[in-house]
Amino acid sequence: MPKKRVTAVGSAALDTVETPHGRIEDALGGSVFFIGAAGGLFAPINIIAVVGDDFPMNEIDFLKQRNVNLDGLEVAAGTTFRWEGHYHQNMNIRDTISTELGVFEGFQPRLPEEAKKSDYLLLANIHPSLQLDVLEQMTEPYLVAFDTMDLWINSARDEVMEIIGKVDLVIINDEEISLLTGESSPILGAYEIIEMGPQYVVVKKGEHGAILITRGGSPFLCPAFPLANPKDPTGAGDTFAGAMMGYLAATDDVSPLNLRRALVYGTITASFVVEEFSLDRLKNLTIGEIEERFRQFRSMVEF
Amino acid sequence: MPKKRVTAVGSAALDTVETPHGRIEDALGGSVFFIGAAGGLFAPINIIAVVGDDFPMNEIDFLKQRNVNLDGLEVAAGTTFRWEGHYHQNMNIRDTISTELGVFEGFQPRLPEEAKKSDYLLLANIHPSLQLDVLEQMTEPYLVAFDTMDLWINSARDEVMEIIGKVDLVIINDEEISLLTGESSPILGAYEIIEMGPQYVVVKKGEHGAILITRGGSPFLCPAFPLANPKDPTGAGDTFAGAMMGYLAATDDVSPLNLRRALVYGTITASFVVEEFSLDRLKNLTIGEIEERFRQFRSMVEF
Repeated sequence: MPKKRVTAVGSAALDTVETPHGRIEDALGGSVFFIGAAGGLFAPINIIAVVGDDFPMNEIDFLKQRNVNLDGLEVAAGTTFRWEGHYHQNMNIRDTISTELGVFEGFQPRLPEEAKKSDYLLLANIHPSLQLDVLEQMTEPYLVAFDTMDLWINSARDEVMEIIGKVDLVIINDEEISLLTGESSPILGAYEIIEMGPQYVVVKKGEHGAILITRGGSPFLCPAFPLANPKDPTGAGDTFAGAMMGYLAATDDVSPLNLRRALVYGTITASFVVEEFSLDRLKNLTIGEIEERFRQFRSMVEF
Repeated sequence: MPKKRVTAVGSAALDTVETPHGRIEDALGGSVFFIGAAGGLFAPINIIAVVGDDFPMNEIDFLKQRNVNLDGLEVAAGTTFRWEGHYHQNMNIRDTISTELGVFEGFQPRLPEEAKKSDYLLLANIHPSLQLDVLEQMTEPYLVAFDTMDLWINSARDEVMEIIGKVDLVIINDEEISLLTGESSPILGAYEIIEMGPQYVVVKKGEHGAILITRGGSPFLCPAFPLANPKDPTGAGDTFAGAMMGYLAATDDVSPLNLRRALVYGTITASFVVEEFSLDRLKNLTIGEIEERFRQFRSMVEF
């Protein structure tokens, strides 16, 4: 039986990033490339996004060798979305230096027929009205995952709430939970989100790992893989989400145990991406390296 | 065979604490009472500290029913060490409002004969010259654990370094590792501490759990037990250390696997103490409740 397919919609960008470990300019960024490069290691994936006619298409050639279908990557007249961010010595803190939306501002996702038929849908962080639009274009997705950000919770709260009522899995961090629910405890906040409809909430804690909260089940505490020298945290959350969805589609199993494993694969894959800038580490990453680190991880959590 | 014994030296205090969940005044505080109440659930423990003649001794009667030997608790003429702290809405941040050392300023630990013969020694956070003095009074401890704080790393660095060269296990948080080693990565910093002599480093991450680094072995990633409603984080680290040492003494087993379990028992016991102010939750805590939460924890980390 062929593997199930993931469709992911999100941003495509060129990032200028400065961290204590270096600087890159106009490098591959935006959620869909991290999601595609990570998820494509596990299962076929269609990515839906827009770039400008200035976009260096040759830089994403590697995605085609990796189960990533780019038919939904629209090239529009204009400039690609550009973001510049500087990370502090403590890389949990970053300042956005500039954001130039370019063609992303007028993005209207149009799904190719194949993408509409995917069983697994990842609505990465874009305006919730676009997420709703994509969800409506889908034929009959089996599992819908949703990511967002503080900007939309503040500026388009009603639409965020509407879409939360329609998805299965919410990926969210502590601050976003607090903004969304008014609850200072991420655990209580996650259970409030479960009350809004979703079966699953993944609480992202960055370098501290993630927690999976499920309706009626026991939480799963997933530590992060310890890294001596992370260089650039950009895209870690998207890599996590992409690998998690890719693994779920590849196994087509959303049992409680397999969901936990999907979080671990997400965590492990994200531990690679932060070792280099942009998508550099994902470009040559193999599923064998992921499996090896998965085994190391298991040996680090047993007691 | 009787259980091995723990000796713990540290501070005894009366704390005034304000958190978003309430306020207590002149309540039991200081490291040794948390350590004693937690460690005493597992193994016999001698605590070494000083209180003033104003100390409400009846409030620690419950410790005597719990394997805690108070012969090393000196009562000196003067006032008990008092600390006042206010926690922010985010309880990871606290302001020290006042510190009155009282009799703690002239503390000269004198170990009763029984305390000198313990196999497990916990040097909780006091001036490193006092920690060295206590270590010298010990007959032949099998495992020596050491805790400290930024104040001593900054003000008595040479003595901190001297004692680290003489202990087996260092309990330390991210910021202290960075201060001590100049290393911004806690993982690399922990391995630098291993190079200074100790076999084990426990990196405390508060609500995010702990990591055990061992010489030559695989790290152990120990998440925190998720709590919906923590009320007062005061004493969580001391409770963790006390339970960990009590469990190690009770089992008299420092194999890699048992050390991991000791961290989990520390984490679980600490998860109770923060549910109420001061030592309130520890007073009526039973080993049965700890075992029950240990089982829940295991079900939360399997994958």
